[in-house]
Amino acid sequence: MVEIEAPALVSDELRDALMSVLGKSGVVSDPAVVAAQSGDWSEATKVAPAWVLFPRTPQQVADVLALCSHHHQKIVIQGGLTGLAGGATPTHGEVALSLAKLNQIEDIDTVGGTATVQAGVILEELQTRVEAQDWYFPLDLGARGSCQVGGNAATNAGGNRVIRYGTMRELVQGIEVALPSGKLLTMMNRVTKNTTGIDLKHLFIGAEGTLGVITRLVLKLSPKPTAANTALCALPSFEAATRLVRDMRRALPGLSAFEVMWADFMEAAQEIGNLRPAFATGSPVYALVETLGAHQEDDREQLERFLGEALEAGTVCDVIVAQSLEDSRSLWSYRETIGEMLGQLRPHAAFDVGVPMAAMASFVESVRASLRARFPDQRHLFFGHIGDGNLHVLSGPHVSADSLHMVEQVVYEAVRKVGGSISAEHGIGVIKREFLHLSRGAGEIELMRGLKAMLDPVGILNAARVFA
Amino acid sequence: MVEIEAPALVSDELRDALMSVLGKSGVVSDPAVVAAQSGDWSEATKVAPAWVLFPRTPQQVADVLALCSHHHQKIVIQGGLTGLAGGATPTHGEVALSLAKLNQIEDIDTVGGTATVQAGVILEELQTRVEAQDWYFPLDLGARGSCQVGGNAATNAGGNRVIRYGTMRELVQGIEVALPSGKLLTMMNRVTKNTTGIDLKHLFIGAEGTLGVITRLVLKLSPKPTAANTALCALPSFEAATRLVRDMRRALPGLSAFEVMWADFMEAAQEIGNLRPAFATGSPVYALVETLGAHQEDDREQLERFLGEALEAGTVCDVIVAQSLEDSRSLWSYRETIGEMLGQLRPHAAFDVGVPMAAMASFVESVRASLRARFPDQRHLFFGHIGDGNLHVLSGPHVSADSLHMVEQVVYEAVRKVGGSISAEHGIGVIKREFLHLSRGAGEIELMRGLKAMLDPVGILNAARVFA
Repeated sequence: MVEIEAPALVSDELRDALMSVLGKSGVVSDPAVVAAQSGDWSEATKVAPAWVLFPRTPQQVADVLALCSHHHQKIVIQGGLTGLAGGATPTHGEVALSLAKLNQIEDIDTVGGTATVQAGVILEELQTRVEAQDWYFPLDLGARGSCQVGGNAATNAGGNRVIRYGTMRELVQGIEVALPSGKLLTMMNRVTKNTTGIDLKHLFIGAEGTLGVITRLVLKLSPKPTAANTALCALPSFEAATRLVRDMRRALPGLSAFEVMWADFMEAAQEIGNLRPAFATGSPVYALVETLGAHQEDDREQLERFLGEALEAGTVCDVIVAQSLEDSRSLWSYRETIGEMLGQLRPHAAFDVGVPMAAMASFVESVRASLRARFPDQRHLFFGHIGDGNLHVLSGPHVSADSLHMVEQVVYEAVRKVGGSISAEHGIGVIKREFLHLSRGAGEIELMRGLKAMLDPVGILNAARVFA
Repeated sequence: MVEIEAPALVSDELRDALMSVLGKSGVVSDPAVVAAQSGDWSEATKVAPAWVLFPRTPQQVADVLALCSHHHQKIVIQGGLTGLAGGATPTHGEVALSLAKLNQIEDIDTVGGTATVQAGVILEELQTRVEAQDWYFPLDLGARGSCQVGGNAATNAGGNRVIRYGTMRELVQGIEVALPSGKLLTMMNRVTKNTTGIDLKHLFIGAEGTLGVITRLVLKLSPKPTAANTALCALPSFEAATRLVRDMRRALPGLSAFEVMWADFMEAAQEIGNLRPAFATGSPVYALVETLGAHQEDDREQLERFLGEALEAGTVCDVIVAQSLEDSRSLWSYRETIGEMLGQLRPHAAFDVGVPMAAMASFVESVRASLRARFPDQRHLFFGHIGDGNLHVLSGPHVSADSLHMVEQVVYEAVRKVGGSISAEHGIGVIKREFLHLSRGAGEIELMRGLKAMLDPVGILNAARVFA
C-alpha cells in the first residue's frame, strides 16, 4: 500500500531558522524530492515528509536537532531507505533528515586498517574504495548499492558474513553522534581495545535512531581476501548441519558463510528461478558454505578434504565444490532466487528471527506444520544464515491482512517460546513494534524509555519507532 | 603500600535487614575474611570493608542493592580481586559485595555453543568444563585461576587471543544485572543475532560495576581447537610488524596471537629470566605468533610456508617455528618473564595503552627517548598485544612517587596526542580516574554521569570509580 499524504506544515520561523543553518538548498519541499523520501523498502504506509533537510556537516546535524528540540518538531532520520521495518518511513507531521549529503570518506588508514567515514557513505562505495587499497570492509548485504554506513550502524546490519566478521556492531570502532540537545558527541576511537569507562557507542548502534543521529564512524577493516571457495552440501538432517558448522568452524577458520536451505526452499528456488536440481536426489536440508582466504588452490583442497571426511562420517550425503567462479555463482544462485521469490509470493509475510541452534529443528518443524495446516495452498519457505542462528521464513501469497497477521502470530509465538529474537537483523522500526515485548522484557523496555527520556526529552527523534 | 583500616560502622538496622536476606553466613565481619577482601592486585591502598556480603542467588543481589539504596550504604563489588586498577579495592565506609558464592555453571549448550553461568564462576573452571565438552571459551589471561567471569565482563577483559576472538564484550551474548533500584534485569539472550532495540547489555559490560551488578551471563563458545602452532620472528623494524600482521591475518585466519616485543624487552627477558638468546644476532623488534586450528602438521606447514615467503620478502629477518609443545613453551618463555620483571622492577609504572598502529613506532620511540633522558638508570620496556594496538610499557624501579607520576605524565600525554586509549584492557578503577579525560571527552564523561544518576541515583555502587 502506498499513500502519499499531504505534507504537514512547518512554521515559518522554524523554516527560516533551518535555512539559516543549512542554506536554502538544504531545506527542500520540492514535491519530487519529498515524494522520493516518503518511505523505505518495507510495507509501511508511505507518507511524504513536509520538508527534507540535507545537512552537509556533522555540526549542521547537531544544529538542526537543537532547533527541532526547541520547536518541538519531530524528525525522521533517513539513510539509503533500504530498511525493511519502516523505521525511516515518515509519519504525519515529521520532517525528514537525510544523511545523503554527509557522504565523505575522510580517511583510509592502510597501516592500522580503519576507515573514517561520514554516515551517508554508500556501503558499496566504501567496499570499493577500501578494496582498491588492498583492505576489505566485510559487511555485505543485498542493499549494498543504496544503503548507507550510518544506517548500517543504526540498525546493526548483519548479512552473509557475520559468522566470520560479526555484525556491524563489531565493525564500528569509533562513532560521532549528534544529540537532540544539539551537542555533538565525538568518540572517534581508532584503537581496537579501549577500556576507559562505559562504551557509549553501543547506546547508538542498533538503536534505530531513537537516541541520536550518527554522523561519522571509524570502521574496522580486514585484510582483503584473495581467494574464495564455495560448496553446496546435501545433508541428512538439520542436526547434521549443527555438527557440520561446528566442525567447519574448527577446521576452516576462514569459513565466511554458512547458509542453510530446507528442502521446501530449494524446490521453490528451482521452480521459481528455473534452476536445475543440484543433486540427483533430494535431501531435507542443504548448506551453502564459503571460505575466504589467500590461496585459491590450497584453500579449495582443504575444503575438499574436510568435506570428503564429512561424507565418510555421514554428516553430508552429497557435495559439490565449486571449481571456478562460474561454479560458485551457480551454487549461490539457489540462495539468491530470494529476490524473485519475494516478488512472486507477494503479499507475503517475511521474517528474520533468531533461534537458538538447539531449538532450530523443532522450531522449523512445528512452525511449518502450523502454517501448512492453516494455509495449505501457500508456500512456507525456511532458510537463513544458520551459522548465526538467523532463520528467515517466507510465507505467501496471503491475500488478506488477517492471514498475514495470523502467520505473524504463529511465528512470533514460537520465537517467544524458545527465547529467540523476533528480529535477527532487520530491526523493529514500526512494523515489529507491537511484538517487541516477545523478545525484550518489561524492565528492558522501561530502561529503553528511560534512555530516550534522558537523551531526547522532547521526543523529536524517530518517535514511536522501536518502542512506543 | 598496604594499610588495613578499621572497618566503618554499619547500622544495626541495615545489618539485621541484610541478614534477613542473606542469612547469618552471608553477612561476614570476621577479621580474617574482611582482611582478605581488602583490595585487588593493584597498588591502591588496601582498606578492609566493614562487612563482606555473600549472596547465593541473583535475587539476593538485587535485594541487597535495594536495601543499600534505601540506607544510603555504599558498596564495592568484588569478583576474584585480580584487577589492576583498584576498582574492587574498598574505600572507607564501603561494604563489600562478593560474587564468590554465586558460582554455578548452569548450562553448557553443546549444539549452539553457549555457556550459561553465574557471575562468580572462575574463568579457568569455565575453560576446563567447556573443553571437556569439546568446546572452547577463548578468553584467557594470567589471572585465569582466580578471576571471575562476571569481573571479566564488568571490565571487558582482553588477553592474548583478542586478535582472533575479540574481547569479553564480543563473547557475551546475554546478561543478567541487578540494579541499585532492586530490580533484576534479565537479558539472557542465547542467539547470536538479536536486533530488537537498544542493546542494553553494553551499558554494563566494561562499566566496571558503576551501573549495576552482573549476576549471570550467556557466553559464546567456539569449537575447541585441536592444534596450536607457535613461531618467534625477528623483524627489521616495527613497520615490518604492521605488514606482517596484516599479511598473516589474510593468509592464516587461524592467527590467534600476535605479540610484539621490542629489543629492550627481549634483552631484559633474557637477563631477568636467565634465558638464552633465541637468535644469534639481535633485532629491533620481535613478534611471537600463534595459530589455532585442527591439523597440527598441516597448520605448521602453512605457517612455515608463510614465514618462508616473509623471509624472502624481507619482512622477517629470522624465524623459529616450534616443532613441539616444548619448543612452543620455550618461545613463549620470553614473553612470560613479565611476571618476574614486574617483581624485580618494583616500584614500577606499568601501562596498558591503546595506540593506533600507524602511530605506534613514533609513539614508542618518543616515549622511550623521554623516559631514558629523565630516568637513565631505570629500565623502560615496550611490548604488547600489538595485533590489537595494545601496548604495554613497564618502567622501573622508581623509588619516589614523584618519579612514578612523571612517568605517567610522559606516557599519558603521548597517548592523548595520538588519540589513543589510556587503558586498552585493565580499566580505569581509581588508579587512572584522574587521567580519564585524556581518552574520553567532557561530553562523554557527562553522559556517563547521566547514566549513573539514572540507574544509581543514591550513588551506592562502586562510587568514585572510573569517574568522580
